[in-house]
Amino acid sequence: MHSAVEVIRAKRDGLRLSDEQIDWVIDAYTRGDVADEQMSALAMAVLLRGMTREETARWTAAMVASGETLALGGVGRPTVDKHSTGGVGDKITLPLTPLVAACGAAVPQLSGRGLGHTGGTLDKLESIPGWRANLSADEIRDRLRDVGGVVCAATEGLAPADRKLYALRDVTGTVESVPLIASSIMSKKIAEGVESLVLDVKCGSGAFMKDLDQARELATALVGIGDANGLRISALITDMSAPLGRAAGNALEVAESVEVLRGGGPPDVVELTVALAREMLDRAGVSDVDPAEVLADGRAYDVWCRMISAQGGDPEAELPQAAHVETVTAPASGALTRLDAYAVGLAAWRLGAGRARKEDSVDHAAGVLCLVKPGERVTEGQPLLELRTDRPDTLAGAREALAGAYDISGADVEPTPLILDKVTADR
Amino acid sequence: MHSAVEVIRAKRDGLRLSDEQIDWVIDAYTRGDVADEQMSALAMAVLLRGMTREETARWTAAMVASGETLALGGVGRPTVDKHSTGGVGDKITLPLTPLVAACGAAVPQLSGRGLGHTGGTLDKLESIPGWRANLSADEIRDRLRDVGGVVCAATEGLAPADRKLYALRDVTGTVESVPLIASSIMSKKIAEGVESLVLDVKCGSGAFMKDLDQARELATALVGIGDANGLRISALITDMSAPLGRAAGNALEVAESVEVLRGGGPPDVVELTVALAREMLDRAGVSDVDPAEVLADGRAYDVWCRMISAQGGDPEAELPQAAHVETVTAPASGALTRLDAYAVGLAAWRLGAGRARKEDSVDHAAGVLCLVKPGERVTEGQPLLELRTDRPDTLAGAREALAGAYDISGADVEPTPLILDKVTADR
Repeated sequence: MHSAVEVIRAKRDGLRLSDEQIDWVIDAYTRGDVADEQMSALAMAVLLRGMTREETARWTAAMVASGETLALGGVGRPTVDKHSTGGVGDKITLPLTPLVAACGAAVPQLSGRGLGHTGGTLDKLESIPGWRANLSADEIRDRLRDVGGVVCAATEGLAPADRKLYALRDVTGTVESVPLIASSIMSKKIAEGVESLVLDVKCGSGAFMKDLDQARELATALVGIGDANGLRISALITDMSAPLGRAAGNALEVAESVEVLRGGGPPDVVELTVALAREMLDRAGVSDVDPAEVLADGRAYDVWCRMISAQGGDPEAELPQAAHVETVTAPASGALTRLDAYAVGLAAWRLGAGRARKEDSVDHAAGVLCLVKPGERVTEGQPLLELRTDRPDTLAGAREALAGAYDISGADVEPTPLILDKVTADR
Repeated sequence: MHSAVEVIRAKRDGLRLSDEQIDWVIDAYTRGDVADEQMSALAMAVLLRGMTREETARWTAAMVASGETLALGGVGRPTVDKHSTGGVGDKITLPLTPLVAACGAAVPQLSGRGLGHTGGTLDKLESIPGWRANLSADEIRDRLRDVGGVVCAATEGLAPADRKLYALRDVTGTVESVPLIASSIMSKKIAEGVESLVLDVKCGSGAFMKDLDQARELATALVGIGDANGLRISALITDMSAPLGRAAGNALEVAESVEVLRGGGPPDVVELTVALAREMLDRAGVSDVDPAEVLADGRAYDVWCRMISAQGGDPEAELPQAAHVETVTAPASGALTRLDAYAVGLAAWRLGAGRARKEDSVDHAAGVLCLVKPGERVTEGQPLLELRTDRPDTLAGAREALAGAYDISGADVEPTPLILDKVTADR
C-alpha cells in the first residue's frame, strides 16, 4: 500500500518512481483519494526532478487506464492518427484526414477546442453550417468503416486522469514539464485505440516549443511513450516561425483547406499535408498509393464532402463572412523576410477567432489573412495583412499585436525549410 | 496585482521572490484566494529551489502579519523566550522558565502539544493535577508582570498562515525545507512579541537534524530571520544523540524538572538549563545575576510553584504513577557507550507518552526512565531502562523499539560535549 506523501517524497528526492507507485498515485488521484494539493506538489517535483522514459511511459499508461479506450478493431482498415502540438494557421487536420482516408486507412481525429492564440480543429469545422462535433463511440466506428475519416470531439470517458491533471497544472505553474506535456498528449491518443500515430511537433515563435532542441526533446519523449505503449509512431518537427498557409481564423482556414482539397491552396499547406500523409500511410503499412495524386485528382475532396455531410454539415454552404475588413499595408518595398507566427495568432485571437476562457464562444468569421508570405516581394503601400472581425472595437488591439511582427528587406531571402527534422522510435 | 501562477513560476524557475510577491501570496493564502493546490506547488518549488536569507525573513514577517501579535510592552521587564527544535527527554522549558523569571526577565513560553516521538511541553505540565494550558492574552501579560514566567498554549490568533501552511506541508511532502521550517518556527516566536530569543537547536538521532552541518544550517536560518525582524537572538546547538536527563515521558519529566529546581537532578539537564539561562539573560541585557546561584538557592523553585499555582495546578500534588513497570537489564558488564535517543523516544511514545494523531490523548504516567546514562558503568543483569505504562499490551512494542538501541563496551568512554556550537547574528 502506498501513500501520497511517500510518492511525493521519492520524486522530490530525485528517485525513480516504481511502476506500482505510478499506477497507485494516478488511480488514487482519479478516484479523489490523492488530493489536488498532493498531486500539485508531485507535479512540481516531476517538473523540477524529471522522469525517465520508462516512468513517463508508465505514467501515460496509468492515465489511459483511468478511463475507457475506444475499441477500433472492427473498422476493417489500418487505423492511424495525426497529432499536432499546435500552431498558427495549422489547419492540416482538415485536408489530411480525408486524404489519408481516401488512401485506404481509417483516421479517427478526436480533437479539442482552442484556448489562447492557436485555434482548435472543432472550432474551425463548426464554422460549416450544420456540422456537429459530438459523436458516440458507435458513430465514430460507423464513420470509420463507411467513410474512413472522422473529426469529432473526444468522448468524456477517455483518460479522465489527464483531464483532471491538466486543469490542475494550469493553475499551479506546472505546465512546462516535457514528461507531463508528453504524457498528457499521448494518454489521449493511446486511449483513442489507433495502431499508428504521426506527430507534428511545431517549432518556432507560434508554437509552445521555441527552438529545435526543445522540439526534439518533446518529439523524442512523445515517440518514446508511444513506442513503449505499442504504437507504430514517428514525429516530424516542422517550422512554426511564420503562420502555416495564408489563413488564421476558423472559417478562413476551412476555406483554405477546401482550396487544398480541390488541388490548389498555399504550397506550404500542400507540402505538409502530403508529407504527413506519406508518414501516416508508411506507419499504417499502406504502401501502394501516392497521396499527392489522391489529393490532386479530387478523391480526397470527395471523402471530405462525405465526412462533412455525415456529421450534418453542408460542404457546399457559404461560410460566415466578417462584417469588418481592414488591411495592414507594407511600409516599404522589398522582400518580406519575417512574419511572426505568434503575433499573427495573437491578432486573430484578439479579432475574435479564439477564446480566453473555456466557456467563451468564438467568432467563426474572424481572423487574419496573410496576403504576403515570407520570401515574397511587396511594394510600399501594398496590402500585407487583412484583418477580419465582426467587432470593430477589436481592430486596434489586432493592429497593436502586429506592430513589429514583420520585416521587409532590400536583400533577397533564403527560403527556410518547412520540415526541420524527423524522430522515429528506433533512433 | 500578482497571481499565484506568476509567483509559483518565478520560484520554480529559481528566481528570487520580491517582497511584494511574498506579502501578496501569504496574505492571499491566508484569505483563501490562493488555493491549497497552489500553495503546495509553491512549497515544493521553495523546497527544491531554496530561498535567500532575505526572502525567508520576509516570508516569516508576512506570516506574522497574517494574524495578531502579543503586545508585551507593559510587563515592566525585559522579555525573552527560548525555543527548542525538540528532542527526547527535553524538559528544559520547565526549570528554565522559572529560573530566568527569578533572575528578573519576563519569559512567555507559548508552547504546543507533542506529535510523534518528542513530547510537548503542555502535555508534560498537564500531568500536574489542576494545571490548565489556555490563557487569554491579558492573563499572559498579568502572569508575566506578577510572576515573570508563564507556560501556556499559543493563542489561535498568532500566525494563522503558519498554522494553515504547516498542515498543508505535512500531507504534501514539503516538510523538509530549511527556509520553511525556520520561517514556521520564527513566525510563531515573533508573533509572541518578545524582544529576545535563544534557540536550542538539537542535533543527533533523537532530533530532526541528524548531523552538525544540518543543525548549523537551521540555526543560521533561524538566527538570520530573527535578526532581520529585530530580535536579539542567538542559538546553541546541543547534542541529542542520547536522551536529555534520565526521564522521557510527561509526569516523569515534570518530576525530574522539580528535582533540578530543588538543586538536584541529572547533571546534563542542570548544565543545559544554566547555559540557556545565561544566554537568555545576556540577550535580554540582565547582567548582574548568576543563574546557577538562583537555581541552587531555591529562588527558581519558588517561581515554579507560583507559576503552577497561578494556572490552577498544585505544585505539591502527587503526579500520576503508571500501573505497569518493567525493566530492561544489561546483557553484559562494561561502560554504556551509546543510548539511542530516537529509540528511547519511540519506546516512550509506544508506551503511551505521545500521540500518533492530533486528536489522540496521552498517558501522563507512561514513559521510559534511563537508569544508566552513556559513560556510566553497568554489570550484567543490572536494570538499564525502566518502562512505565498503564497499558501492558504496549510493553512488547517498547522493548522492540529498544532492541539494538544501546552498546556496552569493556573500554572506557570519552564523554561527549552537550553544547556543540553557538550561532549568533553577527557571524
